[in-house]
Amino acid sequence: MTTIENPVRNGVDTATLFATLDAVRSNPDIAKFQFRASNRWVSGTHNQSTIHGFYGAMQEMTHQQAHVFDADHPAVLVGADNGPTPVEYLLHSLAACLTAGLANIAAARGVNLTEVESTVEGDIDLLGILGLSDEVRNGFQQIKVSFKVRGDDPEKLRKVVEQSRKRSAVFDIITNGVPVAIEVDAG
Amino acid sequence: MTTIENPVRNGVDTATLFATLDAVRSNPDIAKFQFRASNRWVSGTHNQSTIHGFYGAMQEMTHQQAHVFDADHPAVLVGADNGPTPVEYLLHSLAACLTAGLANIAAARGVNLTEVESTVEGDIDLLGILGLSDEVRNGFQQIKVSFKVRGDDPEKLRKVVEQSRKRSAVFDIITNGVPVAIEVDAG
Repeated sequence: MTTIENPVRNGVDTATLFATLDAVRSNPDIAKFQFRASNRWVSGTHNQSTIHGFYGAMQEMTHQQAHVFDADHPAVLVGADNGPTPVEYLLHSLAACLTAGLANIAAARGVNLTEVESTVEGDIDLLGILGLSDEVRNGFQQIKVSFKVRGDDPEKLRKVVEQSRKRSAVFDIITNGVPVAIEVDAG
Repeated sequence: MTTIENPVRNGVDTATLFATLDAVRSNPDIAKFQFRASNRWVSGTHNQSTIHGFYGAMQEMTHQQAHVFDADHPAVLVGADNGPTPVEYLLHSLAACLTAGLANIAAARGVNLTEVESTVEGDIDLLGILGLSDEVRNGFQQIKVSFKVRGDDPEKLRKVVEQSRKRSAVFDIITNGVPVAIEVDAG
């Protein structure tokens, strides 16, 4: 049993967080999740994803509401700029995952946060996706994340960021890669 | 010079697309882009990214408008469900990239599309990010993309999807990985 001095810290309900960890320890199947997005093409490079249902804690679940996101290419890349590019959503995903982990880990360690900001930059040479060079990869060549973190002792804050990196789902996916299977129903 | 029979197909301005390829061939520096997202922590696992400016075609540029996205964890993961999870945004990013490429490639090949839908599913065992197992990775164990594509000849449609996979920035990032550097200003 974990003793909690301050059950809510950084907006994180640490009592529930530790209770969740205990529940998963007693039944690891609770931890098996599947997340999903469904996408439909609109026109040109403009398409739209809906995010609503997911599986977790041994049952089908939904977010409180369905979320719809438009993606497109900007005019300079022959799109209509109806939304961010797919690669920008990926950068947002990385920032969001590291930041959520950071808040959870700080709370679990009793470290107070007052401010967390980050910028994520991804460098890409479009010679790859345009098919104009076999030596240039399609994706980002590198990604840089810059965090500004304020709160308790700076050394503790740096350690919290480091632990967030070590336990981030998106950081793992982007740095280590994941197998992707593609099925096509063409008719 | 490329001869264009139908300058707009699938909503893609193929005349401008081919002109852009010609421009990049004559000056490869046009193809060097940097995309960005900036994020700020709100409370708990809730944080918010803004996507607006990027560098490309040898100049600083902006999308027509700034886009703001909330990310959070659902209640079952001790969040307040103020938005999708970071990993769901990553799945959306993959669907959007493959679909945008598919529309461009079909247009360039003179293949007509009438309908493109996809679902993306990512399986994750949270024992990794919860720190409860050293043998379970933090990220997705696998991702599955299911496409439904309608339009011209099914065999041509399948080849278009295959070429989109071969030239997708996000597919490359997620399957092959990218180095990520993290800098921390803690004070």
